[in-house]
Amino acid sequence: MQREEESKETLTVGIVGLGLIGGSIARRLASSTSIPCRVLAWNRESKARQEIYSEAHSLGITCVATLEDLAQARPDVLMLANALKAMPEVLSALAKCIDREHTTLTDVGSVKALVREQVEAAGLGDLYVGAHPMAGSEHTGWRFSSAQLLDHALWVVTVDEHTQLQRVRNVLRVIVQGCKNRAIVLDDATHDQSAALISHMPHVVATALANTLCESSYRSVALLMAAGSWRDMTRVALTDPKRTEAMVEEDADNVARLLRTMSEQLAQVATMLECGNTQQSEAFFMRANQWRLYKHACSQREQTSYTRVLPFAGDAKQWLKNACQASYDGEVITQINEQSVTLLRDARMSMV
Amino acid sequence: MQREEESKETLTVGIVGLGLIGGSIARRLASSTSIPCRVLAWNRESKARQEIYSEAHSLGITCVATLEDLAQARPDVLMLANALKAMPEVLSALAKCIDREHTTLTDVGSVKALVREQVEAAGLGDLYVGAHPMAGSEHTGWRFSSAQLLDHALWVVTVDEHTQLQRVRNVLRVIVQGCKNRAIVLDDATHDQSAALISHMPHVVATALANTLCESSYRSVALLMAAGSWRDMTRVALTDPKRTEAMVEEDADNVARLLRTMSEQLAQVATMLECGNTQQSEAFFMRANQWRLYKHACSQREQTSYTRVLPFAGDAKQWLKNACQASYDGEVITQINEQSVTLLRDARMSMV
Repeated sequence: MQREEESKETLTVGIVGLGLIGGSIARRLASSTSIPCRVLAWNRESKARQEIYSEAHSLGITCVATLEDLAQARPDVLMLANALKAMPEVLSALAKCIDREHTTLTDVGSVKALVREQVEAAGLGDLYVGAHPMAGSEHTGWRFSSAQLLDHALWVVTVDEHTQLQRVRNVLRVIVQGCKNRAIVLDDATHDQSAALISHMPHVVATALANTLCESSYRSVALLMAAGSWRDMTRVALTDPKRTEAMVEEDADNVARLLRTMSEQLAQVATMLECGNTQQSEAFFMRANQWRLYKHACSQREQTSYTRVLPFAGDAKQWLKNACQASYDGEVITQINEQSVTLLRDARMSMV
Repeated sequence: MQREEESKETLTVGIVGLGLIGGSIARRLASSTSIPCRVLAWNRESKARQEIYSEAHSLGITCVATLEDLAQARPDVLMLANALKAMPEVLSALAKCIDREHTTLTDVGSVKALVREQVEAAGLGDLYVGAHPMAGSEHTGWRFSSAQLLDHALWVVTVDEHTQLQRVRNVLRVIVQGCKNRAIVLDDATHDQSAALISHMPHVVATALANTLCESSYRSVALLMAAGSWRDMTRVALTDPKRTEAMVEEDADNVARLLRTMSEQLAQVATMLECGNTQQSEAFFMRANQWRLYKHACSQREQTSYTRVLPFAGDAKQWLKNACQASYDGEVITQINEQSVTLLRDARMSMV
């Protein structure tokens, strides 16, 4: 009850790591006009820290000297936007100083099951709700961060059956009220498999395309000829290869399974082309027609949409189940208040 | 000698097929301010022909009733922008009415060796110079055509050792003077292998990605989560699947060979991920660094560039060899006059 009143009050968010994503969220929250946001941030020591802090300060972000300072400021939500490999160290430091009653712990990583394991290993599982903003670019670091990077972004909020509803609401407030973004709720496994499908595996494919170019004796002429299709299909291979490698290895099982599927499909098409089997070849090219129809529908203006309200009421486990089911049904959280979230569904949001 | 004087005069171009590419070229030439262009076009009978002709007329394109009318107007260059499957029929009709002395025959197809075979089978090899504008979109047909589709486009002009220099010059005039585009000269095989690498094979990969999505039980959630990387990597899979299938089958051997390479790479990464072999995995992600450095150089403003003049002089075979070598060296034709072409090379234009 106490927190319902608080939701109109200033939202204090602490951010660990002012890189591309953490920096963009900090900028977006600091410029929020929808609710008053107090943004605190801590970045590990580095050559660039003084410069980053100075720019961040000028944008209204309060930068602190130590991780302990950040925890002791008792933010409503403390968001881990550091690299995954730094997670154990950061979590073990936080375990000693975070206000376990007041502060909700979240992160922005592109895999969720692994982060939950690390958070639980640090004894912070009760405080934790996972989060993953579906936004990014091929660049890295604070200097490429911008509030606009999150324009129209959808966040995935990940839960398990023990997740506390109040903490889900805190994280949703940061996303929906603070960042003016949309959110869906999922379990870790569904997130990690879906992220492998639409992001992690495609990063490997883009890298393999770039490798194929590099190793071709025609690379020089091919690059002269490269137009839109090549540029778009290899853009994400421009990402720092160490970051891509880390992302892929963190979701290794899901990515490996999907790569096998891709590898088999490409070998099958090669065989079809070698044998001149145009019937099978036609079937291959038609298989994605359902998705083409979906994309065509997305481009049409007329869409049937509806909204419905999902109140924060009754059993927490049941609420989380309902929220996950809404995501499978293509419903997206677009508003939040003390009592409920509002879900939107339109033609853009479901293929089947 | 006579033609040297003509090059300042009106350039008459006949276009067969007002689809996405033919329509865009017709629009661009008809609005050319650099040289006076007379644009004639013929489209096969269809439900939409009257509408297309009426719009084309209003843009200054002279539409004719039959293919014979088009040939008999004695265009300097007659450009085949029809589907490849219609090529034998169109060529056999043209063989009866084209002015073999005056008119140069060209096309805009995405494979070149196959078109040359068809042109030679129709007894029109002496008139022919291949051409392929590296531009396009996922759409099809006149209604998506636009003069801007060719903005900054590079064309590949393909030749063999028998190609007549005067005819190469005629086609280059259409591209460089008429369309204000850039061009490189290549043999058919180099073109077809390079096009397979940067366009045809990636189209199959994009389609396989879309297929993988369609067949995933997570497709609904995955589509909600899809952001820039998925959108960019699957855009070309939105192309009419029949057009993509045709393009891939026309360049079957080259595409099949590259698909095998891709398939093996993806299977290798899957194995690395399954075995946790991070050393091999790191090597995979680093292999394309040479290309990343090239792209980084492209994004920098300061570039070392030079131009040089290649005169239309001496032995025709030698000129064609020199022009092909220039392409391998990353030199691009940016100007043409009666006596010569001007080649430009800058840092954007070579990786190695």
